[in-house]
Amino acid sequence: MQRTEIATLGEFGLIRHLTNAVTLRNKSTLKGVGDDAAVLDYRDKQTLITTDLLLEGVHFDLTYTPLKHLGYKAAVVNFSDIYAMNGQPKQMTVSVGISKRFAVEDLEELYAGIMLACDVYGVDLVGGDTSSSLTGLALSLTCIGEGEVGKIVYRDGAKETDLICVSGDLGAAYMGLQLLEREKNVFQGEKDFQPDFSGKEYILERQLKPEARKDVIAILAEAGIVPTAMMDISDGLSSELLHITSQSGVGCRIYEDRIPIDYQTAVMAEEFNMNLVTAALNGGEDYELVFTVPLSYHDQVQALKGIKIIGHITKAAFGNCLVGRDGGEVALKAQGWQSFTEERP
Amino acid sequence: MQRTEIATLGEFGLIRHLTNAVTLRNKSTLKGVGDDAAVLDYRDKQTLITTDLLLEGVHFDLTYTPLKHLGYKAAVVNFSDIYAMNGQPKQMTVSVGISKRFAVEDLEELYAGIMLACDVYGVDLVGGDTSSSLTGLALSLTCIGEGEVGKIVYRDGAKETDLICVSGDLGAAYMGLQLLEREKNVFQGEKDFQPDFSGKEYILERQLKPEARKDVIAILAEAGIVPTAMMDISDGLSSELLHITSQSGVGCRIYEDRIPIDYQTAVMAEEFNMNLVTAALNGGEDYELVFTVPLSYHDQVQALKGIKIIGHITKAAFGNCLVGRDGGEVALKAQGWQSFTEERP
Repeated sequence: MQRTEIATLGEFGLIRHLTNAVTLRNKSTLKGVGDDAAVLDYRDKQTLITTDLLLEGVHFDLTYTPLKHLGYKAAVVNFSDIYAMNGQPKQMTVSVGISKRFAVEDLEELYAGIMLACDVYGVDLVGGDTSSSLTGLALSLTCIGEGEVGKIVYRDGAKETDLICVSGDLGAAYMGLQLLEREKNVFQGEKDFQPDFSGKEYILERQLKPEARKDVIAILAEAGIVPTAMMDISDGLSSELLHITSQSGVGCRIYEDRIPIDYQTAVMAEEFNMNLVTAALNGGEDYELVFTVPLSYHDQVQALKGIKIIGHITKAAFGNCLVGRDGGEVALKAQGWQSFTEERP
Repeated sequence: MQRTEIATLGEFGLIRHLTNAVTLRNKSTLKGVGDDAAVLDYRDKQTLITTDLLLEGVHFDLTYTPLKHLGYKAAVVNFSDIYAMNGQPKQMTVSVGISKRFAVEDLEELYAGIMLACDVYGVDLVGGDTSSSLTGLALSLTCIGEGEVGKIVYRDGAKETDLICVSGDLGAAYMGLQLLEREKNVFQGEKDFQPDFSGKEYILERQLKPEARKDVIAILAEAGIVPTAMMDISDGLSSELLHITSQSGVGCRIYEDRIPIDYQTAVMAEEFNMNLVTAALNGGEDYELVFTVPLSYHDQVQALKGIKIIGHITKAAFGNCLVGRDGGEVALKAQGWQSFTEERP
């Protein structure tokens, strides 16, 4: 593969090179890349802002993450936060810090993934910058979206007796990560090793190329349902549910046998001798939506494809509990905090 | 000084700890920290977005930059981009990546600087996150601002015969940096060394604690002047002027004896045996404003305190030139590209 040193383009040349394919598609985007700030017109909607900082070695491992996938995932994860507010992502800024290890072609790959995500989700790339980094790749994304007045969904609106719903299935991204980490450790050093991932495509795709649930937001809108509370599942279902119940001042009760889990996820958990429910509750990076709706919507929600009712909201005094297949109850716990890593020497 | 390990608070605890003093002051801020995205209401204005990624060892050196100053400067530099659009900064998100080298108290210092800047400039902190980093401090800020419809100022509006104006003085931040770098090199290793900076306070403050020219935007508004083009001076006057002229399809002519330079800057340049005009034209990090106004505003602009007319816009065919004190002309050149640094082993 060709390798063009970044210094041959210079900073402004590099930005131009990477963003010259950008087309603006949203009427709210008045001015994108190329001035001190982007200019947006949100005069008929409310504005949503979310941001992410991704650092090599902490948030991603380039040993098994192709740069194009990294770009796609970084963008999609940000869009997911906007959908989780019942909004639509419309603009994004991307800043990249890169060391000399990376060539122009590497950045092209990264941007190809970012642009693909923008295409798929209808988002305009409107700004950002590139700079050097001493230690690898740093990626910072900010997504701007719109929400209709009165229809933005927060975390704090869940009410007693509300139904708790989840889209898609859970735990697959986490099992995909376990698989990638295992292959990396087993074959460390063998340069051209190609592990056999057949039959495991789904969990790998969930880890490497997740999608945001734009479709679920559309289905809910079509059905005329505005959830009372909603979050996307990035840190794991338990963690997100605990955010919703603590901010709403309520408790919850979810049922183990209702938690949607894919077959490949289950097979992999068995292979790794891991607790499947723990993986589904705490694995994270599913980017599914968890939301609550009034009990009166029961039949409507149950009829929605790809949405599962997994439990209900209770009084705060009842706590947050998981009802097992045997009827036993355990308290829901958030995933342990991943401790801050040691600095390289 | 007390040192609290970050792990004792956990991620969510850390964010709460750092942001519990946040008060929201702008009516356009509907929801700040604490959900998937912040929610803003920009229904009577247009929205401006700017973002910055700052990496330790590349954009700042903690040997001589106190964390509180770093936070203040990082915020102010972002506000400056919004003022450069003739807008008002209103909200900001802050994401921080930190290695174990940093304690909770360090982050408190950093946030104290960020919050101080928010207080001074009337900006709401509305989101962001903290994560671990393998190699020091990474800081990503996004600022959201508002602009009045029809009064947002871009880079591409400069017209032939327009006057070129600059606020404040130039080159001081660059000379401050030279001074700090010299002291660092001379006294490397001596832990409690306190260099004598008396008589050099101004250039140090310009480097370590710059201000954004909110006041200039207010003065222009009061005088009823909307510039035809405007930028803030972060990369140096030459570089910014070349952006304005190339995007506007014009040329420019500026006069060496009109470039505003402070006395301390001149003294320091002499001490370092550096070309003073080069420092003022290419030094960067002044965060002053360079803008163009129609010739008809000449008397009005000349009467404004702290604003200097340094030249005028010409036909593109005349190029971009600096007229020296002796009447000689040289082409304006942008500062050289700082090459991408080597990765640490």
